[in-house]
Amino acid sequence: MKLYDSTLAPNPRRVRIFLAEKGVEVPTVQVDIGKAENRQPDYLAKNPMGGVPILELDDGTVVAETVAICRYFEGTQPEPPLMGTDPQDAAVVEMWNRRMELEVLIPIAGVFRNTHEFFKGRIPQVPEYGDVCREQATKRLAWLDEVLAERDFIAGDRLTIADITAVCGIDFGRVTGIAIQPDQKNLTRWHAAVSERPSYKA
Amino acid sequence: MKLYDSTLAPNPRRVRIFLAEKGVEVPTVQVDIGKAENRQPDYLAKNPMGGVPILELDDGTVVAETVAICRYFEGTQPEPPLMGTDPQDAAVVEMWNRRMELEVLIPIAGVFRNTHEFFKGRIPQVPEYGDVCREQATKRLAWLDEVLAERDFIAGDRLTIADITAVCGIDFGRVTGIAIQPDQKNLTRWHAAVSERPSYKA
Repeated sequence: MKLYDSTLAPNPRRVRIFLAEKGVEVPTVQVDIGKAENRQPDYLAKNPMGGVPILELDDGTVVAETVAICRYFEGTQPEPPLMGTDPQDAAVVEMWNRRMELEVLIPIAGVFRNTHEFFKGRIPQVPEYGDVCREQATKRLAWLDEVLAERDFIAGDRLTIADITAVCGIDFGRVTGIAIQPDQKNLTRWHAAVSERPSYKA
Repeated sequence: MKLYDSTLAPNPRRVRIFLAEKGVEVPTVQVDIGKAENRQPDYLAKNPMGGVPILELDDGTVVAETVAICRYFEGTQPEPPLMGTDPQDAAVVEMWNRRMELEVLIPIAGVFRNTHEFFKGRIPQVPEYGDVCREQATKRLAWLDEVLAERDFIAGDRLTIADITAVCGIDFGRVTGIAIQPDQKNLTRWHAAVSERPSYKA
C-alpha cells in the first residue's frame, strides 16, 4: 500500500491527520505539485483527474479523492470512529463534513485557485469569482462560530472528519488572508483544541 | 420521518432515485424553490444553508446534504447496496460518486448558477466563471465516455450512487445546453440503461 502525498496542499493533509488520529501508518511517496509531477503521464495513469492524494492498494487498485481514502481506513481500522457510529450518526457526520467542504474548504480553495499567482497559467482564473468565494468563506466562518457556541466539535462532542476538513480548509485560508477573527471566540477555542492534538502536525 | 423535496432541482432527484432503488417510501413535503420557500425562516431553522432536500427524523434531527441522506438509508436499508459492500468497494464507489459530483454535477450546476435567468438577483453571478464550468463539464463528459468503454456502470458492473449522481447532473445540463454527444456511444448506452429503470422516473 502506498499513499501519494504532498505537503503543499490541504487535501493530503486531511488524510495525514485522519491517519494520525487512527494511529495508522502508511508508506508515502511525495508528489511535487510545484513541479507539476501530478500532471505527468505516470501520475495521470493512476489518477486522470491529477489530484493528490491517492492511495494505491496492494492489488493495484487506486483510490482517489480524500474522503474516499478516509472511508477505506474507517472501514479497515474502525477505532476511533471518525465518520460516525450508526446510520444516524454517520449521516450527521457526513452532513457536517460536506458542509465543511462545500461552505469552507471549497470557497477558500476557490479564492486561491482564482486569484493566486500559483495557478496563473495552470488553470483559467476568474478573479471576480475569487471575490465571490472570499465573501462566502468569510460569511461561513461567522456562521461556524455560532455553530460552535453549542458544542465542542463541529459534529458533536468528539472530533470527526468534519473537524479535520474544517481545520485544513481554514489553515489554507492563511495564504489568501482568510482567517478566524479575534471576536470569533468559539471558533478560536475550537481551533486551539484541534491544533493541540498531536495529529495536527501530521 | 419527512423528506423535504423539490421536483425542480437535481439534488432532491438524486435522493428520490436512491430511495426508489432501495424500495423505500418516505412521506414528502414539497418545497417551492421558485417561490424561495427554502429561504424562509421556518426552513432556514431546519437547514441554515437553505438547500433541498433535507430529511427530518422522528426525534427532530435534521439531516441535510444529499449524500448524507442517502448514507442514512444505506445504513437502515442495506439492500441493494448502492454505496459499496466492503471497505475497498465503499472507497471505490465514494471515489466515483465524488468524481461525478466534482467533475460533472457541480460544473453543470456552476453553468446554471452563473448564467441562468433563475439565479439573477438571487446570487452574485459571474458569467465568465460559468464559461469555465461549461468547458470543464464538456471535457469531463468526453472523459466519462472513455471510462464507460470498460464497464457497464460508472463504478463497476452494477448501479451505484455514482450513476445516480451522474444521471441527475447530466440531465440537469439540458437547461443550459450541455448534453451527451451523438458520438459518445458508451455514455449514450449507459444513459439508456439508467433511464430504462423504473427509479429514473422517481
